[in-house]
Amino acid sequence: MADTAVRSDKPSTNSRTPEGGAPTAAHTPEEASEAHIDIPVVTEALLGTWADTRREAREMIKDPDFWKVEGEPMPEHRDRTLKQVHKLVEHGAGGRAFPEEYGGLGDNGANLAGFMELVLADPSLQIKSGVQWGLFGSAIYQLGTKKHHDKWLRDVMNMDIPGAFAMTETGHGSDVASIGTTATYDPETEEFVIHTPFRGAWKDYLGNAALHGKAATVFAQLITNGVNYGVHCFYVPIRDDEGNFLAGVGGEDDGVKGGLNGIDNGRLHFDQVRVPRENLLNRYGDVAADGSYTSDIDSPGRRFFTMLGALVQGRVSLDGAATTASALALYIAVTYANQRRQFDSGTGTDEVVLLDYGKHQRRLLPALAQVYAQFFSGDELLTKFDSVFSGRGDTPEDREDLETLAAALKPLSTWNALNIIQECREACGGAGFLAENRLVGLRHDLDVYVTFEGDNNILLQLVGKRLLGDFAKQFKGKDTAALAKFAAAQAAGKVFHGAGLRALGQTVADFGSTARSVELGLRAEQQHELLAGRVERMIADIAARLRPAQKASPAEAAALFNENQAELIEAARAHGELLQWEAFSDALPTFTDEGTRQVLTWLRDLFGLTLIEKHLSWYLINGRLSAQRASAVSRYIGRLSARLRPHAQDLVDAFAFEPEHVRAPIASGAEQERQDEARTYYADLKSSGDAPTPEKLAKKKG
Amino acid sequence: MADTAVRSDKPSTNSRTPEGGAPTAAHTPEEASEAHIDIPVVTEALLGTWADTRREAREMIKDPDFWKVEGEPMPEHRDRTLKQVHKLVEHGAGGRAFPEEYGGLGDNGANLAGFMELVLADPSLQIKSGVQWGLFGSAIYQLGTKKHHDKWLRDVMNMDIPGAFAMTETGHGSDVASIGTTATYDPETEEFVIHTPFRGAWKDYLGNAALHGKAATVFAQLITNGVNYGVHCFYVPIRDDEGNFLAGVGGEDDGVKGGLNGIDNGRLHFDQVRVPRENLLNRYGDVAADGSYTSDIDSPGRRFFTMLGALVQGRVSLDGAATTASALALYIAVTYANQRRQFDSGTGTDEVVLLDYGKHQRRLLPALAQVYAQFFSGDELLTKFDSVFSGRGDTPEDREDLETLAAALKPLSTWNALNIIQECREACGGAGFLAENRLVGLRHDLDVYVTFEGDNNILLQLVGKRLLGDFAKQFKGKDTAALAKFAAAQAAGKVFHGAGLRALGQTVADFGSTARSVELGLRAEQQHELLAGRVERMIADIAARLRPAQKASPAEAAALFNENQAELIEAARAHGELLQWEAFSDALPTFTDEGTRQVLTWLRDLFGLTLIEKHLSWYLINGRLSAQRASAVSRYIGRLSARLRPHAQDLVDAFAFEPEHVRAPIASGAEQERQDEARTYYADLKSSGDAPTPEKLAKKKG
Repeated sequence: MADTAVRSDKPSTNSRTPEGGAPTAAHTPEEASEAHIDIPVVTEALLGTWADTRREAREMIKDPDFWKVEGEPMPEHRDRTLKQVHKLVEHGAGGRAFPEEYGGLGDNGANLAGFMELVLADPSLQIKSGVQWGLFGSAIYQLGTKKHHDKWLRDVMNMDIPGAFAMTETGHGSDVASIGTTATYDPETEEFVIHTPFRGAWKDYLGNAALHGKAATVFAQLITNGVNYGVHCFYVPIRDDEGNFLAGVGGEDDGVKGGLNGIDNGRLHFDQVRVPRENLLNRYGDVAADGSYTSDIDSPGRRFFTMLGALVQGRVSLDGAATTASALALYIAVTYANQRRQFDSGTGTDEVVLLDYGKHQRRLLPALAQVYAQFFSGDELLTKFDSVFSGRGDTPEDREDLETLAAALKPLSTWNALNIIQECREACGGAGFLAENRLVGLRHDLDVYVTFEGDNNILLQLVGKRLLGDFAKQFKGKDTAALAKFAAAQAAGKVFHGAGLRALGQTVADFGSTARSVELGLRAEQQHELLAGRVERMIADIAARLRPAQKASPAEAAALFNENQAELIEAARAHGELLQWEAFSDALPTFTDEGTRQVLTWLRDLFGLTLIEKHLSWYLINGRLSAQRASAVSRYIGRLSARLRPHAQDLVDAFAFEPEHVRAPIASGAEQERQDEARTYYADLKSSGDAPTPEKLAKKKG
Repeated sequence: MADTAVRSDKPSTNSRTPEGGAPTAAHTPEEASEAHIDIPVVTEALLGTWADTRREAREMIKDPDFWKVEGEPMPEHRDRTLKQVHKLVEHGAGGRAFPEEYGGLGDNGANLAGFMELVLADPSLQIKSGVQWGLFGSAIYQLGTKKHHDKWLRDVMNMDIPGAFAMTETGHGSDVASIGTTATYDPETEEFVIHTPFRGAWKDYLGNAALHGKAATVFAQLITNGVNYGVHCFYVPIRDDEGNFLAGVGGEDDGVKGGLNGIDNGRLHFDQVRVPRENLLNRYGDVAADGSYTSDIDSPGRRFFTMLGALVQGRVSLDGAATTASALALYIAVTYANQRRQFDSGTGTDEVVLLDYGKHQRRLLPALAQVYAQFFSGDELLTKFDSVFSGRGDTPEDREDLETLAAALKPLSTWNALNIIQECREACGGAGFLAENRLVGLRHDLDVYVTFEGDNNILLQLVGKRLLGDFAKQFKGKDTAALAKFAAAQAAGKVFHGAGLRALGQTVADFGSTARSVELGLRAEQQHELLAGRVERMIADIAARLRPAQKASPAEAAALFNENQAELIEAARAHGELLQWEAFSDALPTFTDEGTRQVLTWLRDLFGLTLIEKHLSWYLINGRLSAQRASAVSRYIGRLSARLRPHAQDLVDAFAFEPEHVRAPIASGAEQERQDEARTYYADLKSSGDAPTPEKLAKKKG
């Protein structure tokens, strides 16, 4: 759907160092001021593969009915959000992912692209509609079969059946396999008996559970003929048309939350609630009338992960929404910083515009680079998701790649959102704390993104385990001698890191000491080498430390893993950062306009250097950077920030938010008006001759 | 007031390395398990010099009338907070700082110690009472003279005159000297005319301005006889007894904020509002009937900073409140992490308690060490404040030291509060996002602490400038040759950092490679050397880079400063961290019980090592740590965390919060009950013989 003249398919050759061997950055202000970005072209690239759907969604949410009212009390906010979801149905926005035969579009990528934009209207709307169609509806569609689709999909799509996704329990969040709810098959009545055996097994934190849900997709341990076949999903009606709980169903309201208070999160519990055998969503496992169990997937573990993997879209959409919210925060803070003045420069002219301060540039511009990287990596994730779920590229390997990609990117973008929005709020001072300027509300609402749909640390741990698995495959079939040789080489590199320095040709003398020569050593190629090398080395080191676990007792093995847990998570984060960097770099050659490519290359460099600065001690300890070059990294970031400063407004304007999306008075131009009014007042006062003399001057005269 | 048997005056000799030359840490689990802290003794030390006042305040706020109702809509919250402030008057809590002749206690230290604890009840209450007595009342007391005290102090203390502190303007936050509001003296009527000349000069973000304030202490440019004598403070009535604005006064409600919604922040503007000449708060500058201006302080700059300095108590109390709020968050998260279980360890027994995970320890225990350091540094700040404001130690140098100390500590503790509360909220997963568990509310309310009462970055910049000034004093009177020699020595150390390594005796061979020998190189003495050396070196480097500014044009000098701004702020932060570390270390020898001292020494080591790890790349680049020792830092932190893990609950219990202060269901023992119930259920099921067979086992049998 994207305009292919703007963003063509990516070239596969030399994609990691798109600008080849040329230096990446200008070295004089004159050079810097020449390049500028072509804003519409950049907008098109940021909107990505499903740009049209995004634009359509943004057009729709210009309607004030979709806007969050900051500070609205919870009950009114819940009502408003419910009405908004119904309004989405009117716009046909609820059905894009579902098959055409049920009135949908069967377009998975477009569906998520459109949903992500709802974060601009109200994150509660994004998540409540995500609960309805992305979780509840998706469970029926992805885990159920045709009979379920025929029976419920239309009503789910048009909100005649609002539903809850009842997976998490008070006692079990990330460890879904250990949930306590049971679904025991009774062959006499051909029913499943859904039951909550203890308080910790109450379903908890479920959107639509406190008030609006009429049904729930309930995850429970499937027990038949005395055997527990593990977690499966069941369609369970929970309320009648008057909103009263059905017999045996009970619950509680989760009450006020740190954000997303437009959603009625709540708890559910079941006291021997009976549902027909057909209510088992049976795509991956079924129970016959006689109670015998069958599944196409023999391994219980693989079956469980296949079922959970079918629900990966939540993570994909959180990644995109977090990026869009971060972009909005940066639009607000950069626009304000370009108008707001504070403190005299000491040169007797105007007060200084905030964004001209070195510290302010350091606070906002690397965040801007981060968000650009995330737009590009997010589009790659969405494209992969669409490919798998459309069936165009749906092998088990594709699914695993998709899940790993989502598990690597969602934690980074959601954590980054919290940090970026907070930095933007602080950069706007007291004005940033007013709800009307949106930053605090965005941060409150996005807070929970870092722990739901997979706790960020747990997701990164999954990525780390996958990386360890990939690493181990390299040695499959190799003999002990090869392993020992590898281990020895690793150890040598670690202790005698001087060798590492020599290999990279980084003696103090190698480039002399000018800024240019140091920057030559931090070009795209080197950035990639540093970022990729760190992931590889960290994983190799952890693998080496975990090797004794193979011959250890389970307790010893667990202890050994635990010792390395923090670093494994760190390695997975490094992997995610590398993916973002690669996505940004891959996008650069698609810009045919030279100025655009130049500015975005500086921005990519700022992103790469900021990542390298963050982990600088690792590069030093492991001999990947000399002390001299390491000390140049921060200075280079300062120079890149100054170079990008004139382009900051262009770069946030390229997000193409319209006033109806921004809705923050401080980013409306009101600050500029106030500044102009004050300046005119003082100029008029001066020319009138009535201006009071400053005390210092009066003393000199006297 | 503190029990001197528990915490005696600090010894002044060798206070930086209290445990002398002995190794600071045990090296086996057996050694670690022997020591434990004496909880009441630690509580007493944490409560500090004004422990009795703190306990009194904590007792008072056990009354539910003082508690925040999470999610309460703004209007009701504002009413509640107002009533709470009146209730403080009944408890006599409003007057501790004011003189006895007006019904106060004249006890500055006790006053702030008591106020800080209010953050446990509701941060809105802490800040609203801070506005009334710490800002509005303090301005009258500190900037006014006896006639003002006689006229208004009693009514301010008993809340008959709720007031606003009208300093900040929409157009000027941190740069108070540039505010636009004018107070022009009219000798004919002997009145000041208070006026707002343009929109940017509206007073903004003022507590008590939107609804409750009857008067305001208004900061304005004092103009008399055609001369502007700079910013002075005026007492200005703003509302009548019915709550209507007086003639010429206008305003707006700031509306919903990101937190602290119990406070009615708002805007004020003045249209030629006349107040009697006597309403100038004239302690530092006065205008006679004929309009002639006098002041004991001749320099306009010094007069301005003296007036602002009289209001330093806001920063002192924010530092303490931020620490108390962080402690509460850690109490909640650590208690929960000690009860909550998630994921099987793989050893087939119970699921693992969260705090047994290596990553979870890394998330919470360094934060615990941070908060301990802050309690000790906060008490030093409070003691210094009390000494200056009681007049016992009130020289200009004392005032400057106090202001620098507050400006260094407040930014660190308030930023730390946001990071620590957030980490705690994430560590509690979805439960942490529920308002009832208090973490999200605490974070929302404390958000603005980082930008009000002095924006954190601006405060640190002030500290940095003070450090540069102190540095320059060293060279006063020295000749150019001495300076050149110093500069050369600096440069040599920078480039040939190998020399630095040798000086510290850190060749690869110096300690062999065992953990113990590396730890010997990271004892208290070395921690101090590293932390202090970093501040000194950063300041020296920045001073060297700024030296050309002395002979440059104002514009060039401003540009040069701007290039170094981010690093100057970083140096000030390093200075604040050093102060915290020293305060923690100074406290250690006051613990006579060996187990307590041992555990707290580990905790101090964890604090020091965490700081060093944060800045590891700096130590490497500057040759202060070898790669080998640097790589040991993170491992050492891991070991210290594991060593402290058994003491975590003791260490948070020592905060001595009672259930009425905690009020978070997840830290109430409810989680433990749920865990026990689930365990009993599964044990009973197993012994009943009715437990379903796991699929895997069934397959093996079949």
